Amino acid sequence: MAPGTEGRDEESPAGHPSYVLNPHLSTIKEDILYHFNLGTASHDLPAMFGDVKFVCVGGSPWRMKSFIQYIAGELGLGDPKAEYPNFCEGTDRYCMYKVGPVLSVSHGMGIPSIAIMLHELIKLLHHAKCSNVTVVRIGTSGGIGLEPGTVVVTKQSVDAKFQPQFEQVILGKTVIRPTDLDEELAQELLQCSKEIDEFNTVIGNTMCTLDFYEGQARLDGAFCSYSEKDKLNYLNEAYSAGVRNIEMESSVFASMCKLSGLRGAVVCVTLLNRLEGDQLTSPHEVLVNYQLRPQKLVGYFIKKQLQKSN
Amino acid sequence: MAPGTEGRDEESPAGHPSYVLNPHLSTIKEDILYHFNLGTASHDLPAMFGDVKFVCVGGSPWRMKSFIQYIAGELGLGDPKAEYPNFCEGTDRYCMYKVGPVLSVSHGMGIPSIAIMLHELIKLLHHAKCSNVTVVRIGTSGGIGLEPGTVVVTKQSVDAKFQPQFEQVILGKTVIRPTDLDEELAQELLQCSKEIDEFNTVIGNTMCTLDFYEGQARLDGAFCSYSEKDKLNYLNEAYSAGVRNIEMESSVFASMCKLSGLRGAVVCVTLLNRLEGDQLTSPHEVLVNYQLRPQKLVGYFIKKQLQKSN
Repeated sequence: MAPGTEGRDEESPAGHPSYVLNPHLSTIKEDILYHFNLGTASHDLPAMFGDVKFVCVGGSPWRMKSFIQYIAGELGLGDPKAEYPNFCEGTDRYCMYKVGPVLSVSHGMGIPSIAIMLHELIKLLHHAKCSNVTVVRIGTSGGIGLEPGTVVVTKQSVDAKFQPQFEQVILGKTVIRPTDLDEELAQELLQCSKEIDEFNTVIGNTMCTLDFYEGQARLDGAFCSYSEKDKLNYLNEAYSAGVRNIEMESSVFASMCKLSGLRGAVVCVTLLNRLEGDQLTSPHEVLVNYQLRPQKLVGYFIKKQLQKSN
Repeated sequence: MAPGTEGRDEESPAGHPSYVLNPHLSTIKEDILYHFNLGTASHDLPAMFGDVKFVCVGGSPWRMKSFIQYIAGELGLGDPKAEYPNFCEGTDRYCMYKVGPVLSVSHGMGIPSIAIMLHELIKLLHHAKCSNVTVVRIGTSGGIGLEPGTVVVTKQSVDAKFQPQFEQVILGKTVIRPTDLDEELAQELLQCSKEIDEFNTVIGNTMCTLDFYEGQARLDGAFCSYSEKDKLNYLNEAYSAGVRNIEMESSVFASMCKLSGLRGAVVCVTLLNRLEGDQLTSPHEVLVNYQLRPQKLVGYFIKKQLQKSN
């Protein structure tokens, strides 16, 4: 048994390590992936998704659609201006696109939203008998002490107290799960950024919060009970703890990758430097350009990996 | 000073109680409601939204679009088959529609996603100088011990340990906020359901979780470390604590309504009885019909309120 696969569903054929850790799943006749509007009885998941090797996930459905167009062009697998079908078109919860071995899935905003998606994605990869899958979250974030537009590859996701852990509540009890990501993968992504040589990328800790305003010490929410000095003290403490950016999904992403045995990375561009402000005042086209950076980096990485394996 | 308005932004003119609690806001020259793609400099918010008296929010963008069409027809303010403009069309984070005094806004899934929306909604109502606003979340949920299709109007939102509280993390410290909703409003909604006389409605506690699978004791997630017996024990304990349904947004909704002084209610239909299963196996058209019930109930309520005030 490969290390880290203990306790996984024993139904998986040899060579296809299962990503699920749930003995009940094999007793279910039909598994409905409700929020994808897909299911094992209604869809031939191995035929549809069996060749997936890379899954890119991001909050915005529009961005994940444009990513599949971009990657189609980069890999020479399709017209970057073509319309690609949305596999989740029967629902408005998530969208999902595919080109060759690359799947692109939206996850909405915040830990609960991405967690629902990841549960169903991991089951999808399991039902489709996928193996050797790498999952990368490409997102946006607030930076701390970085030039806006810098890309951060996450070393560890930390909570609002700067602890590298995710608290999962199960049957009313809190279970602590680790949130470190694949170090080798992070280094490979950093190397890709050097080769592209178009924007700065750093490896750092990412703080993952449950709230965008009070939870990230912003002064511009509907409620604010602290001063600008309190805010800056907190953000400087975060910087001292190795935090380079703040977003809202990385902790559960990291913990679920680790638990399932999926190789995972979080690649987020910083849209502003939180030590200098709270609102996104950069011109629209500048922000749009920044948002292309994680997809450019991950596109380059995927292309390089596929060239290596050919 | 009216009770409950202590500490609110003093800029508000008399007679327009401000919903915000943030002294910094009045010092900001331009407030960008980033996730709505609206702002105080780019839009005339009082002209666009000053007459809003009812805000209905729900997770699904499609449902909130169909709600505005439904309410347009019900109130005789527009064609229920017409296309209504999306005020957030420049972003894919949320969608927002308006007919007369009714605003319909989507909020995605989970506490963080609805919290971002509510911060920006409360600021929008403040900037637009709205007053006497009622906010209702119309959603879907898993029921406990109820016939599927039953509508639950929330008395208190409770956490996974059945406590009526929401833990907001501010500058790394946990602040406990209450989660009870407007009792009179809940009773009015119950009365409306009796008058409609088409489906069952009950008042009960709603458990709000951060996760759909492990967090709600489901056996069909990617991970599951407990038995069916453990699951049923937990759900039965919840029932004993007065919980009648489970969803993922009510706690922060209730706490933010209370803090801002907005009159708020949570009206969710139960799509299944969790004591009997985890997956949504009812036919599609049955589920679609169930999802119309909260909007029918709230539509009836709004119509009745408007008739009263005329």
